[in-house]
This record gives sequence, structure tokens and C-alpha cells, in this order.
Amino acid sequence: LKDSRVVSVGIVGVSGYTGRELLRILQLHAYVRITEVYGETSAGRRLHEVYPFLDKNTASLEIKDFFKEKHQAEFYFICVHHGKAQELVASLVEEGKKVIDLSADFRLKSAAIYEKTYGVKHKYPGLLETAVYGLPEIYREEIRQARLVANPGCLARAAILSLYPLLREEMVDVSAPIIIDAKTGTSGAGRGLREDLHFPHMNENFKPYAALYHRHQPEIEQELSFSTDLNISFVPHLLPVDRGILVSSYVSLKANLSKEQIAAVFKKVYAGEAFISVLLSGYPELKGVRGTNNVHVGFQTKDRRAVIFVALDNLLSGASGTAVHNFNLMAGFEEKEGLSALTPLYP
Amino acid sequence: LKDSRVVSVGIVGVSGYTGRELLRILQLHAYVRITEVYGETSAGRRLHEVYPFLDKNTASLEIKDFFKEKHQAEFYFICVHHGKAQELVASLVEEGKKVIDLSADFRLKSAAIYEKTYGVKHKYPGLLETAVYGLPEIYREEIRQARLVANPGCLARAAILSLYPLLREEMVDVSAPIIIDAKTGTSGAGRGLREDLHFPHMNENFKPYAALYHRHQPEIEQELSFSTDLNISFVPHLLPVDRGILVSSYVSLKANLSKEQIAAVFKKVYAGEAFISVLLSGYPELKGVRGTNNVHVGFQTKDRRAVIFVALDNLLSGASGTAVHNFNLMAGFEEKEGLSALTPLYP
Amino acid sequence: LKDSRVVSVGIVGVSGYTGRELLRILQLHAYVRITEVYGETSAGRRLHEVYPFLDKNTASLEIKDFFKEKHQAEFYFICVHHGKAQELVASLVEEGKKVIDLSADFRLKSAAIYEKTYGVKHKYPGLLETAVYGLPEIYREEIRQARLVANPGCLARAAILSLYPLLREEMVDVSAPIIIDAKTGTSGAGRGLREDLHFPHMNENFKPYAALYHRHQPEIEQELSFSTDLNISFVPHLLPVDRGILVSSYVSLKANLSKEQIAAVFKKVYAGEAFISVLLSGYPELKGVRGTNNVHVGFQTKDRRAVIFVALDNLLSGASGTAVHNFNLMAGFEEKEGLSALTPLYP
Amino acid sequence: LKDSRVVSVGIVGVSGYTGRELLRILQLHAYVRITEVYGETSAGRRLHEVYPFLDKNTASLEIKDFFKEKHQAEFYFICVHHGKAQELVASLVEEGKKVIDLSADFRLKSAAIYEKTYGVKHKYPGLLETAVYGLPEIYREEIRQARLVANPGCLARAAILSLYPLLREEMVDVSAPIIIDAKTGTSGAGRGLREDLHFPHMNENFKPYAALYHRHQPEIEQELSFSTDLNISFVPHLLPVDRGILVSSYVSLKANLSKEQIAAVFKKVYAGEAFISVLLSGYPELKGVRGTNNVHVGFQTKDRRAVIFVALDNLLSGASGTAVHNFNLMAGFEEKEGLSALTPLYP
Repeated sequence: LKDSRVVSVGIVGVSGYTGRELLRILQLHAYVRITEVYGETSAGRRLHEVYPFLDKNTASLEIKDFFKEKHQAEFYFICVHHGKAQELVASLVEEGKKVIDLSADFRLKSAAIYEKTYGVKHKYPGLLETAVYGLPEIYREEIRQARLVANPGCLARAAILSLYPLLREEMVDVSAPIIIDAKTGTSGAGRGLREDLHFPHMNENFKPYAALYHRHQPEIEQELSFSTDLNISFVPHLLPVDRGILVSSYVSLKANLSKEQIAAVFKKVYAGEAFISVLLSGYPELKGVRGTNNVHVGFQTKDRRAVIFVALDNLLSGASGTAVHNFNLMAGFEEKEGLSALTPLYP
Repeated sequence: LKDSRVVSVGIVGVSGYTGRELLRILQLHAYVRITEVYGETSAGRRLHEVYPFLDKNTASLEIKDFFKEKHQAEFYFICVHHGKAQELVASLVEEGKKVIDLSADFRLKSAAIYEKTYGVKHKYPGLLETAVYGLPEIYREEIRQARLVANPGCLARAAILSLYPLLREEMVDVSAPIIIDAKTGTSGAGRGLREDLHFPHMNENFKPYAALYHRHQPEIEQELSFSTDLNISFVPHLLPVDRGILVSSYVSLKANLSKEQIAAVFKKVYAGEAFISVLLSGYPELKGVRGTNNVHVGFQTKDRRAVIFVALDNLLSGASGTAVHNFNLMAGFEEKEGLSALTPLYP
Repeated sequence: LKDSRVVSVGIVGVSGYTGRELLRILQLHAYVRITEVYGETSAGRRLHEVYPFLDKNTASLEIKDFFKEKHQAEFYFICVHHGKAQELVASLVEEGKKVIDLSADFRLKSAAIYEKTYGVKHKYPGLLETAVYGLPEIYREEIRQARLVANPGCLARAAILSLYPLLREEMVDVSAPIIIDAKTGTSGAGRGLREDLHFPHMNENFKPYAALYHRHQPEIEQELSFSTDLNISFVPHLLPVDRGILVSSYVSLKANLSKEQIAAVFKKVYAGEAFISVLLSGYPELKGVRGTNNVHVGFQTKDRRAVIFVALDNLLSGASGTAVHNFNLMAGFEEKEGLSALTPLYP
Repeated sequence: LKDSRVVSVGIVGVSGYTGRELLRILQLHAYVRITEVYGETSAGRRLHEVYPFLDKNTASLEIKDFFKEKHQAEFYFICVHHGKAQELVASLVEEGKKVIDLSADFRLKSAAIYEKTYGVKHKYPGLLETAVYGLPEIYREEIRQARLVANPGCLARAAILSLYPLLREEMVDVSAPIIIDAKTGTSGAGRGLREDLHFPHMNENFKPYAALYHRHQPEIEQELSFSTDLNISFVPHLLPVDRGILVSSYVSLKANLSKEQIAAVFKKVYAGEAFISVLLSGYPELKGVRGTNNVHVGFQTKDRRAVIFVALDNLLSGASGTAVHNFNLMAGFEEKEGLSALTPLYP
């Protein structure tokens, strides 16, 4: 654990929701100095013009054009769309930088699956091999050594955390279908204007989208398919709230297990995890985790069926919070540094 | 079809959400005269004091005590809690009245299952046998002849409609688990104050409840278990909206079927149904059905898995709207009478 | 009162919120046949493709291009933006049609004020003189005789109704400032995508806009300035809800008046008005009028100050509902025809 | 400025929203150790059972009964209802403690006005004289010396901040009426269940309450009446959101002033204030301040009328945030200590 040195950090893509959230968190981090910020539409403006909440040091930074500047920070967070991130990441890695990529570009090990899923050619298949999937609860040691970490998709993180313990411990009947019914707040869709996110349409509304064909499914399958292919049905739905994901995952168990036995497995597998709480009574709900990097997990069982609920904040634990968690591991800081000040905004 | 006569109607329990909704619908009904209204806390007041929106005829009715009055209407709608409804229903049936019971008291054929589910003794097991489960799409002819109709639970109606066609047509692999992941607006929980429905708690929130042990599950199993017991996991969640249910039902198919093939089955089974729309593109969403008695159904398939989405308004198609639908069948009116004026409030 | 004949109606601009709402209402109207519908982006499609809720007759209409068709209906509702409406209205009036214009183009008597307010040249100042301001509570007789009715702005209607009685009865000290603090739901801003109406921005938000310089102010001043110029401060705010306007209007009284005395003035001035309810206890709230054409009015007084609250549904009483009210007057139908089926969607 | 010592703090009334918020903030405070927590219904439980988000030190505290314990902390925050706070405050002051009272019991200088406003006898009129009104922007020096600080009402703080600069600088025509039209989120009403805060009622709703007779008006008048009585109309409204107050205050000016001139006055009067931002373009909105201790101020003018908008988070700047601000002044810490980590949760 090194505590004395301050690390210089650059953020590429500061005008979206995840870039904004990173600025907010890193400002609470004792050992970070943001030295470079990049944007497209916002290039040329000072950060405080876009984000008046920032403190003195960060606020005066000018938003610049990534391709016109010399990159001098040690670490970079990439907050641009998939397809566009590839090139930025590759050039930064080549320059010897450490990179945390919040896009989907380096999450999938297979370039073929990436191309099928995102409809974009992958130009750096070699880098895919060295990239580490940024789920600290599974890849802590690899992340510590990584030069490039691919931050998980928000829905994927929730889904994987809900299923990993029982699958790893081989308690699931994997011949039976696994259902992941996910519900997410609207900020997951980003800042881009869309008819279905026009307030009068989305307010008081609720609907499924991308049923059975969502882009996070390959990520989930990649991380959970231990020995055999899984039969996963993944369906996300859009909630009329700002933030929050709640995933309800249904599995068939090999043997009858009580709620308490399931909880014990999760407590063992996630032992020592700073951000995961296993609830023994009640169920996870969005407002218990909103504004935090925490993950709440709950359960119910009946006969040989189990349902596991996971709640997290899609912009924090689902994106920028976990990105900082990964950063802390890569840079050798305490895992909760900068993240423990994020307590739930309730009500 | 008899159009010329006006039917006299009594409503027992007018101060809850379903009683209110019945008043609103029946006021639009050309052949109904509400002649009696009963309540507990509101007894002694005129209807217009409680519901200023009512028109002249209905508004001046006095809310009375059910047990102190002579019952002179032909039809009665029962909008009181389960356990309390039993006795009212039984006495009205004995008086020769036709009754539509919106409570859970006569939905289950087995008194034993009722007692286990609701923790209340059933005093009229004989009546359970003659009661008809009020799902017009399945029991149209029985409802026409019925003296007592048990209106379905709101979540049960959505769940049953989502699964009935594929099960009846024997297209589902019933050895595999069936998952019903339901999401409902808050009005389904009624007018009673509760901590989890306090606005600052429920707003921007979302959570599961009664997972795997919800009281509507036996109703669903009763109506869907054609030849064999089903392996159903039913989990409802609470949405931060006023109205609306969306159910996502997952089944394993016996053979590969396209989305269009599934839709064709639904179109066949629900042919001629006035309130059911099978969507061929897009998915059902709450705001497409809010304020109406309509049911929107949509699908997706992949390999041999299918997910069926059903959206309906929990207070209309899920309660009072279907109650009036049942009434129209029992009284010999057109099925849409009083209900076709309910078009979606959008936005 | 003529009840036996059916009137043919055309709607110009069916894809916006007010056009949609007109279709919904007119479908409930016993004596209307919609024979023509016009749109731009939706031209060439059948109505039911855009609005699946419509009944058989209307649903099959094709949306056409206004400028390419012969106009054969008797009445036209114009639901296009100000500036664009002028020409359509003028040509229809010349063709001998009766027109209800929901845009701002014929509300202001002065072409100069119109041009200053909307930044658009008015090409038909002559028509401005014959157009009647479509506020039935003030101009009932003029509307009955009108060929062209200019439907009021939604905020303007609420503001005028709140102030008209006390001003007309000369009870207000007009030397003191009059404050109209208005709050409106988001559907008032229409279907066009805007950053501030992106769900993640508007949800849980609230803000003023166009303070002291809103375009409805000249309309309000025109209708309320009886003998002298008024000193009006008009500030609208945007509420995170779908529908509803609540206006809080503050005046100084010439003499001390109780709440009951104020209410008596309103009851006298609005005597017989089908859609206005004067509340003697409690205050108006959005959910009391949502989904209806009703206007709820309430009061409070203290010393010689009074505040008047008016609540209405911006898309109904604030737009399409009042348009149909005007239509009923122009066509000689009962004023509530088509509108009385609109009862409040609660909850 | 003393930075080296840690201060011991007790919180009386930890189960309400303001108590919870204090725990959340003080956990971020570098120099506070919470040593005692008191509650009624929650007495006997550990803090982490009620608030799972708390860190190790605080979480293990037992909630105790105030009247049965010896009070050993240096500072106390009182978060109980008015009427009940009086006695607790008086006894703590007598014990030599420093007290920040978040209730209304010591805000009004006049016991007579207190009794008329709250319908409760004031038993400690002597203490009223020594209590300091806890508005740091006005009473910074007095707060530094105070033993008892009365934390302002949430609406009162917003209203006073909106009007203080122009009144102090004598730019307002005080013979004309002053209108304060306030809108507040629901958390201001507290945790107690109420019919009008039942989710299905409050959601999508908006309404005025306590018009012209709200209990915060005397507080506002006390703080703003420099030389003469003001003619203030104060009307709050309830917004369907969790958090946030937006006040729209209308004044008549003695002379024509531009928006920029008004802003200059505010910038001068609030120069150096850590939590106040004067916006030169755009208007304040709830989501700009949600989750922070910040106050956003904006303006518009026309002729000799001005409207001033103030937005703040009712639980932070309107209650617990300002309480910690007051604490920092009383204890000699930096004013922003513990509060600067509260950045806006957006979206």
C-alpha cells in the first residue's frame, strides 16, 4: 500500500454521465490530481463552465482535443462510445500509459464475438488478450498487474455478481435455463436525446428492450461459463428513475438450499469485499444503494429454485465507481479511497 | 343482446381505489343505474363529497352500512378485503343477487389452498364450487351463466394471459421451470398507508416483494396446470408509478418457434377478444395501456426459449375494468359497453 | 340545440400531443365524424399505425398532405406551430370553413404585438379582427357566431380564469402589482426533443423558465386589462409531471374580503359554467383535474391580499378540451358533448 | 482555526430524515466523533441496524433514551419536533453544552408569536433571547460565540436568502406587496405517514398548502423587517420530488435595475460565502443543488419589478447541512469541513 504519492490522471470524454461522475469521485480522492481532460463538443471550455460543482484545482482545467495534445498523465479513464474507444486506448497503451476503459471495446476476449455484437471491426485483437476484465471481485490480482482494464458493462456487472458464487461453487443445475430479468434507470442510456427518453414519454412508463439480444449478454456468458455453455435468457427493462439497476436472476439448484444457505455461499465467495453487502432479511432496493458504490444482494428459494436480487447504482458501481475501484487496485491505493464518501442519498 | 333495459347495481366498498374506478366506469355505461353504495369509514356521506367528479344521478347517493340496509339491486360488485368479502357475497347470493367479487375469496377452487394462502378460514366451501373464475378470455360461457364471479387478481390476470395460449396449445416444455417476473405500479397496493409507500421512500425506488411466495401464485397455477403440475417461479416487484403491470414470462419451448409463430398462436387463441392486442413490432409498455381496459402482448424468442410480455392497467384490466367486462357478460350487454370510452391517457 | 346531425371534421397536425388528444376526445363525441387528417412527417400512414387506440371508423383514415388535398369537412382544428398556422387558417376561412386554431396565430388582436412576441410577420391582420378569443367563459356568444376561434394558450387560460372575476367586479387594487406564478407539466412543451426534457435531466427537477417574458403574457394582459394597464409579473415553472397546470395568482384587494366572499364572486361570475368548480375547502391539485376538461379554483386571503389557485389539465382544458368546447358552441351542440366522459384518472 | 482536536457530538432524534442526514455528513467530517445518539422508537438498537451505510466507528453506537443517560458530549444536535425540543435544549444548555436545535423552538425572538404560531406554550422565554438564529450568511459572528443556535426552517432559509440583499441595501419599495411563492420536495414533511404523501396520491401531483398562513412566515418577517413591517404573502407548494426547494420571490424596486445590477448586489452582500452561487445566466433548478449544501440564486427583472429564484436542498442547506455549517462556526473549524464532499447527484 503506497499512500504518499499523488497520481496524475487524464479523463477522455468528460461531457457524458460517466465522465462527469468520475470527476465527482476523483475530487474526493486524496491521491489523485486530474491534469488532463478531453472532450469533443465541449473542447475549448473550462471544466467549471460545464460542471460548476468542481473545486478550485480541477475547475480551471481546459477541455482539450485528445488528438492534438501530448498525453502526460500516468493513468487515463476512457469514457467514449464503443468503436471510438479502441484507437484511443491502443495509442495510450503504446505510449506506456495505464488505461481504464469504460467502453465495451476490450471487454470481450473474442474479436469475432465483439464484431458480431457491436457491428464494428476490432483493430486491436492483440490488446484484447492482455486486457483484464475489470471486475475486482473476480480479477483482483490480475487488475493489480494490468496495464489495460476493461470496465464491465453496468448490467453485466450486476448480472455476473448475482450468479458467480452459485456457479463457481457448482450448486446450479446448468442444464436448466438461467433467467436474468434486469431493470435499469434511464441514465444508463446516456445523455443522447431519444424519443423514448423524452420526459413525457418515459415518465410513469416501463418497458422491456433488446430482449434476449442485449449486447451485455456475451460479456455475462464469457464470465460465467466455467465448464459448459450456459442457457441464459437476459432481458433488460427501462425504469422511470434516474439511477439504479436491480437484477432478478433465477436458477435451478442441484439440491434444496435454504435462503440462509445461499447467503452463506455468497458471504464466503465475497468475503472481505468492501462494496458488497449480503442482506439476510428484506430485499435489495434501488434507494438503498443510490449515490454509492455499494452492491446489495438478497435471495429467496423454494424447492430447488432460487432467485438472487442484486441492486447497484448504474453510474457508480455500474460504471465510474468500479472504474475508480480498478484504478485504486492498479495504483496500489486502498480499495475504498475516494469511494467511501459516497453514502446513499436518502430520501 | 338486450339493449333496452337498465340494470340496477350496488357497490360494496366504494372508498378504495377499485370502488372508485367502478363508479367512474359505470357512469360511462349506458345501461347501468347505480342504486346502492356501501362503505365503512365513509358511511353517512353523499358520494359527491368523496368523489366530486360524479355526475348528478350518482353523486347524490348516500353511502350506507351494508349490514343495516335492504339490498334491492340486481347486481353487486364487492370491493372489500379478502376474508371480509366471504360473508357479504354469501348473503347476497342467498338473496338471489348476482355478484362480482373483486376480492380473493372465491378465486381458488380449494378451500384448503385458500386457507393456507390467506390464513383465513373459508366458511362457504360450497360456494367455491359454483363460483366462476372471472377471466372472460377463458371462461366466457361460464361467466354468462354465473351467479357469482370471482374477479381475478391483477397480477394473476396478467400472468395467466401471458402463458395460457402456449400452454393450452402444448407448445411449452413443462418439465423446465417457468419464470414470471412481474412489475406493478403502487395503486395495486391500495389506499392504506404503508412505510414503503410513503412518497419519499417509494419515489425513485424499485424493489421485489413476496418473492416466490406471493398470494396470486396459487391462482395462476390453478388456471394454467392443464395436465401436470407446473414449475412456476413468480416474483413481483414494485414500480414507482401510479398504475400499470408489466409481466415478463419465460418459458422453454418444445421446438424452435419464431416470434411471428408465437404471435400467430396468441392471435388464434385470443381471436375476437375485444381487449387484447398482439403486437408484432415493438414491446408492450405501461403507457400504451394506462387508463384503458386493454391488454398489450409482445414476444421475443431465441433458440428454444421464449419471453412473453403482457402490459395492462392494474386498476382497469387488472380489477374494475374486467369486473365490468364480467358484468356485461352476465347481464347480456355488449362486452365493451362502458369500457370503450377508456382511451389511453398519453402523455 | 341541434342533436340530430353529424358534423364532418378535419384535423390539421395529428402527430403532436394536442392533435392526438383531439382524436381521443372526438371519438367520444356522438355527433362528429372525422373525415380528414393532415400531417407532415406522418403523411401517407393510416391513423391506426400511429394511434392504435382509435376505433374502427377513424383508424383507417389516411394521414394526408394538407396542401395537396381538397378540403371537404365543415370544421377544422389546427394543431400546428404558430407562424405555420396563419396560412392554413386563412385559406380554410376563405374556403368558407369554420376553424378552431390551437396555435397562437390569431389570439392577439394587435399584429404589432404578435410580431414582437413571436418574431414572425403576421400576414392576415384583417383576420385578427374577426377572430374570436376562444375562452367560452367570457366569449360564449361571440364563439357561437364565430367562423374563426383562436384557442387560448394553456397557461393563459389558467391565468385569465384565475383573475377575471375579481378584476371584472373591480375588487382588485390595480395600482399594485399582480403576480402570476405558474407551474406546468412537461407535455405543454410538446413532442420535440429537448435537452431539458431528457428524462434523466427533468426527472426530480423543477425550474423557472421565460421569467417575466413568456409569450402568453400579452394574451393575459389583452384579456384582463379592462380600463387600465395592469402591472403583471408572469413567471412559469416546469414541473416533473406529464400533465397539469397550477397557477397561483396574487392580488391586492380594494377592501378586506374573506375566502368565502371571494368564492362567492367566482361562483357568481362563473355561474352555470359546466367545467369550473369553485372549491370551498381544500386547494386545487393537479390530480383532481388530470384527464378531465375541468377547472378547479381555490382561494386564500389575509388582510387585503388574496391568492387564487387554478388547476387544469394543460392538454384538455388548456388545449384540446377547450377546443372541443368551442366547437360545441360553434356547431350548436351541448357544451359537454364528448367531454363529460373524461373523468379524472386517479390514482 | 483549530484543526487538531476532535469534538465529541451527540445527536438527539436519529430516526428522522434530518437525523439521518446529520449522521451521513458528520461521518465525512474530519474532526467529529459521534459519541451519543438518542431516539424514541429506535432506542435499544445499534445504529447500523437502522442505517447500514455507516462506517465502523459510528455504526456500533447504541441508540439510547435521552432522559436516562448522562450527557457527555460537547455539542448536541436536536432533531425532534417543535414543542418537544424546548426541554431537551434547556437542560443541555444548563449542563453547559453547546446546542444546535433543528426544531422551530428557538427561532422566534417573541414567545408570544411562537405560541400563536405553534399553539404551544414556550417555557424558556429567557433562552429565546440568547439563542442565535442560525443563518451563517447573516449572523456569522454571533454564531461563533453562541451556546445555542436555532437552525432556520428550510423554507425560511430559502426565502430569507432570496430577499435579504435587496432589502438590506434598501432597493425594494417596501410599500408594495412582496410575494414568496415556494415549492418544496416531500422530504420536508418528514417520515410520518400522511394520506397526501401516500405514493399513489402524491406522485404526478402538485398542490399548495398552508397558503398565507405557513409557520415559517413569522421567521421570515422577523429576519427581513429592517425598519418597517413588510407586506409579505408566503405560499408554499408541494412538489412530487424527494428533495429540493425552489423559491420565487417577487419585489417592486425603487428604481429600474437590470438583471446584472441585481446580481451585483447579491455578489456584494454574499461575497465570500462558501455555499452561495449567483448565476448570471440560466436559472436555478433543483437538480443543480440536490445532494449538496449549495444555494443557487438567479434573477429576472422588467420595468421596476424583480423576481429572485433560490434553489437549495431542503435536507442539507435547508436543515442538516446548515446545522453542520453552524457547528463548524461554533467549534472553530473551516466552514466547509464535512460539507465539501457533498457534490450534486446528477442525474
